[in-house]
Amino acid sequence: MMERMFGIVLLIAAVFGAPFFFHSYSRAAEDPLPSWQDGPVKQGILDFVKGVTTKGGSDYVPPAERVATFDNDGTLWSEQPLYFQLQFALDRVKALAPEHPEWKEQEPFRAVLEGDKAALGKMGMEDLVALVSATHAGVTEAEFARIVKDWVTTAKHPRFNRLYGELTFAPMVELLDYLRANDFQVWICSGGGIDFMRAFVEEVYGVPPENVIGSSGKSHFELRDGRPVLVKDAGIANVNDKETKPVGISLHVGRRPVLAAGNSDGDLAMLQYTDDGEGPALMLLVHHDDAEREWAYDKESHIGRLDKALVEAKARGWSVVSMKNDWRRVYGFEAPCK
Amino acid sequence: MMERMFGIVLLIAAVFGAPFFFHSYSRAAEDPLPSWQDGPVKQGILDFVKGVTTKGGSDYVPPAERVATFDNDGTLWSEQPLYFQLQFALDRVKALAPEHPEWKEQEPFRAVLEGDKAALGKMGMEDLVALVSATHAGVTEAEFARIVKDWVTTAKHPRFNRLYGELTFAPMVELLDYLRANDFQVWICSGGGIDFMRAFVEEVYGVPPENVIGSSGKSHFELRDGRPVLVKDAGIANVNDKETKPVGISLHVGRRPVLAAGNSDGDLAMLQYTDDGEGPALMLLVHHDDAEREWAYDKESHIGRLDKALVEAKARGWSVVSMKNDWRRVYGFEAPCK
Repeated sequence: MMERMFGIVLLIAAVFGAPFFFHSYSRAAEDPLPSWQDGPVKQGILDFVKGVTTKGGSDYVPPAERVATFDNDGTLWSEQPLYFQLQFALDRVKALAPEHPEWKEQEPFRAVLEGDKAALGKMGMEDLVALVSATHAGVTEAEFARIVKDWVTTAKHPRFNRLYGELTFAPMVELLDYLRANDFQVWICSGGGIDFMRAFVEEVYGVPPENVIGSSGKSHFELRDGRPVLVKDAGIANVNDKETKPVGISLHVGRRPVLAAGNSDGDLAMLQYTDDGEGPALMLLVHHDDAEREWAYDKESHIGRLDKALVEAKARGWSVVSMKNDWRRVYGFEAPCK
Repeated sequence: MMERMFGIVLLIAAVFGAPFFFHSYSRAAEDPLPSWQDGPVKQGILDFVKGVTTKGGSDYVPPAERVATFDNDGTLWSEQPLYFQLQFALDRVKALAPEHPEWKEQEPFRAVLEGDKAALGKMGMEDLVALVSATHAGVTEAEFARIVKDWVTTAKHPRFNRLYGELTFAPMVELLDYLRANDFQVWICSGGGIDFMRAFVEEVYGVPPENVIGSSGKSHFELRDGRPVLVKDAGIANVNDKETKPVGISLHVGRRPVLAAGNSDGDLAMLQYTDDGEGPALMLLVHHDDAEREWAYDKESHIGRLDKALVEAKARGWSVVSMKNDWRRVYGFEAPCK
């Protein structure tokens, strides 16, 4: 009997070729998402991409319309204990303090300079925007990009003693690559500053500057010593968060996404907007439930609060990504998954 | 002597191959810009593209940085006797007038409804923006796109009795194709409304919605009958003209262009900004000097005024495109050039 089965196996191998038998092996070797745990969330992503890219299928979407929008803070990289851009702004306040004696008595600058942790802990996106705005008025956009690049490649996160640019989520970086390999346009749509993000997102995520949507300060064109430059002003032109995320997507992309990923109530409107498109759509909501490898927080958090969006995700069948259960590793500096 | 020359010719043909002799013939057959008259302007374009795309050359620019920005009104299509979007807005005012009895006594609506040509002739970009803003508040972005598409595919220009979408400049459409074939990112950067342009530029220019920069109204996200939509409001968020064109480019592209094309003083800042980049740059200024085939106007015109930019173009050696002399045909509905 064994011999006969062996003979059949050889016959099948001869007819279909050896790869037939190594299917599960070669599939694992070609897994586009090795840092994702097998399960419904990963399978949902694979099925969605297959449907969207299968010509003639009912879920087919032409490449030009394969728009995917990703929140950044808490979705593509960590955001604790402070939004990283807020940490950047704090460092800038300290660096610029000698030129601004008035900051000693002016909030939120006083709290920053005195290291008032209670006050710092309560800061939200608006304080971040105020700090960024105030600390960068007057520099050209090119100078600002240099300052950010300098910070991202030198400042280290206190918990991991790693560069901030290393605290990106390996499973999400894989997902961005996988989507681009399937002719998706990958966009970032974040409450973070557009100029801040552009200084590093191409290097860490492969996202070009023209695919970044974010909060923005005002700026103006002038001739400085006869040379045309763009100078950043103190005001805020746009905060890209909550209900203004779909507005930002419309302004920059001009199409409704077919895939959106976020991690907080700030992403709810973007996810709703994506869900209501005419064709297929995939909504991903990253749930920070892994205090050991990253952080665990949701509806009680002052940063990345996740409350309404989690309720709606469950009601509407969106994919809730458990960092603890769906990700085999969190950061790129951990050992690669095989 | 003749025989000897003939022998040399045969020898050269044998060594270099027959195409050597058909060089000028085959070049003409493959001419990427057949609607452009041979001359310094056309040659300047060809040389620039060759330099930018020649790997290892001193003017080489990586594809990701090959950003080309084009004004629309007067640069890619005509703008006389009124900006086409203004004509669209006038048609909308008439269509919506029954719902707005107050417009009978309110400028600029009164002038529109009474056909006051003197008043209409003096309208500029600001009036256009005011009219567009007022006539489109309350509709969703999707509805607005449908209204524009409907107009572009039915309304006809009085002089040519052609659809407005047919009044695009054939030489410029060729140029856009030529640039894309050489891995340029082609963008539109216009004072026209971003939502207005997006409704037709993909079809007429091959420019996708995400590569359009323009003036924009305000809009907001809301749940209408439980469905998430973007609704256009009455206010103006941004006028993309003159000094704000480089600001718009920075916001949407995040890179300085290497090629910019315009036709009026409204494009001067964009051309200056492009000229001052670190690498090679090509600045094109379309001069409307062909009253017979199109229109002739420059520094005295209330639409597309060209005064300072023409002076600066000459001083800085930018390419001034004479419609009369550099274009073998103007519109795509004219016979193709061979």
